[in-house]
Amino acid sequence: MPGMRDSLAEIDRTIHEPARLALLTALSACKSADFLYLQRLIGLTPGNLSSHLSRLEEAGMIWVEKEIRAKRPHTRVGLTGAGREAIERHWQQLQALRDSAARIGASNDDENEY
Amino acid sequence: MPGMRDSLAEIDRTIHEPARLALLTALSACKSADFLYLQRLIGLTPGNLSSHLSRLEEAGMIWVEKEIRAKRPHTRVGLTGAGREAIERHWQQLQALRDSAARIGASNDDENEY
Repeated sequence: MPGMRDSLAEIDRTIHEPARLALLTALSACKSADFLYLQRLIGLTPGNLSSHLSRLEEAGMIWVEKEIRAKRPHTRVGLTGAGREAIERHWQQLQALRDSAARIGASNDDENEY
Repeated sequence: MPGMRDSLAEIDRTIHEPARLALLTALSACKSADFLYLQRLIGLTPGNLSSHLSRLEEAGMIWVEKEIRAKRPHTRVGLTGAGREAIERHWQQLQALRDSAARIGASNDDENEY
């Protein structure tokens, strides 16, 4: 059955990790988000969030901007064009994985042998 | 914003790992499947497949049955009731994660701050 191994091979583990999947998905819904907002939204410690953001920034999927507002430092984060494309494609790949499994079920009589 | 951190906290990493997600999803489409069939379907080496199956068996999500047919050993694998429930719930949780991100987008003016 073609399809499933291709869908699996294309799964990017940088994106698939649950916290990063949540981060990228949340960021895909807005232009940019504040560090503290993301931290509370996703439920991560500052250290964990920083480390996931660094990994995503290194992969070219997000931009990180530090600014001073009312004398306090703020960190803003947003998806790059590549990041937006990558998270959209990831959800499509997960759907493709699910669809190819459904086709297995439709194409045989319950037992699969090779 | 409630919802996202709850969806994330419920993601089971035993299931979420790409090869195991593919295996459980494929198995959810049939009563049982042959080891060789799964190996070619998912595109794994025998060693990798064995190791993922052991992990899923230990977690109580699949059963593994060894039998002799035409003097050759065959391994059959299938989901347990708990495994079937777990993979269905996992896909629902991923959908919930996606839906809660979409709600963020709908509820604000592009920029999220806390």
